[in-house]
Amino acid sequence: MKGNLFIISSPAGGGKTTITNLLLEELPFLKRVVTYTTRKKRKNEIDGVDYVFLKKEEFENLISQDAFLEYALVHGNYYGTPKKEVFQLLEKGFDIILVIDVQGMKQIKQIYPAVITVFILPPSIDDLINRMRLRGESEEEIQKRLDTAKKEIPYWKEYDYIVINDNLLEAKDKIKSVILAERCKSSKFDINIIKDEKLKSLMV
Amino acid sequence: MKGNLFIISSPAGGGKTTITNLLLEELPFLKRVVTYTTRKKRKNEIDGVDYVFLKKEEFENLISQDAFLEYALVHGNYYGTPKKEVFQLLEKGFDIILVIDVQGMKQIKQIYPAVITVFILPPSIDDLINRMRLRGESEEEIQKRLDTAKKEIPYWKEYDYIVINDNLLEAKDKIKSVILAERCKSSKFDINIIKDEKLKSLMV
Repeated sequence: MKGNLFIISSPAGGGKTTITNLLLEELPFLKRVVTYTTRKKRKNEIDGVDYVFLKKEEFENLISQDAFLEYALVHGNYYGTPKKEVFQLLEKGFDIILVIDVQGMKQIKQIYPAVITVFILPPSIDDLINRMRLRGESEEEIQKRLDTAKKEIPYWKEYDYIVINDNLLEAKDKIKSVILAERCKSSKFDINIIKDEKLKSLMV
Repeated sequence: MKGNLFIISSPAGGGKTTITNLLLEELPFLKRVVTYTTRKKRKNEIDGVDYVFLKKEEFENLISQDAFLEYALVHGNYYGTPKKEVFQLLEKGFDIILVIDVQGMKQIKQIYPAVITVFILPPSIDDLINRMRLRGESEEEIQKRLDTAKKEIPYWKEYDYIVINDNLLEAKDKIKSVILAERCKSSKFDINIIKDEKLKSLMV
């Protein structure tokens, strides 16, 4: 594939969505593939933009067609990344950024080992709780997400890169560096971008 | 080692020295170790800053003491990177950037496989020649360096990262991204920077 596939994971409230949106604004070659889900649409969310919202039967129909790069049942709702959109964009040379959880990362790594994975850590557990409260989540919801976070954080070692989000813009810039650096990997270098034939003949 | 060791190589006139100086200004954690050489000091060069200028006997004495991470005889002059300075700074957590040629890169990679290597390519061979002329080098000198460049460019594949210097500041920013991204590698992550004990206990 010409482009790179990036996965961004973090506990709920860790900042993955905000950072990803900033990166998508700044990097024209970076694209997002909208996740399919069966969870209820929150106010301010737009169908087809934040998620593609599907009925359970529709989602399970797509599972049976092997249409997902990864999918999961989280807190009773399905979430899935459509395969076709990802591979089409990578083939065109775009980089793709996926915001998914640890289980999704593992599934994708098996199908597509070249994936580049980034885990965003909060500076502290209390900070994580505060951010969820600021987002207006119920205490019950917070407790549920915190339990998930505690199960996910130990998997940080399986990720390629770790970024602590104690400052949103600094954390964003670090992940931006990761994306830019990965584009400079010699293993990804496309010799056809060299216009000078003299130079090119030395490189093949 | 706590810090990362970077090698920057490019054909003469490729921009490695200018870019490295810009990076050293911008990144406070990045240090350079001054190369030892027996070549004649050029006007504007300062002993101990641009190079440590030594007599041939002095240099060969250091070789016999195994004091170099790498050294080479290029166009009749010795160039070498002192081992002690590099390892002391890496141990303190600084990143080190070394401007050396392909042969030096190979030597260091054998001694220190964790080294991260960047090759800067010119946009064209003519561009390379022009830059050497602008630098005031004689046609004979240019031809000699061009022959070396033609021998070195085929080794680009052995480097971790490739950056084309068709725009100095953009090339510098790409290498800056590489340096920043490598600091985010989970394999380099120092859990002791986490202050929150609750979070830390989930990470070990």
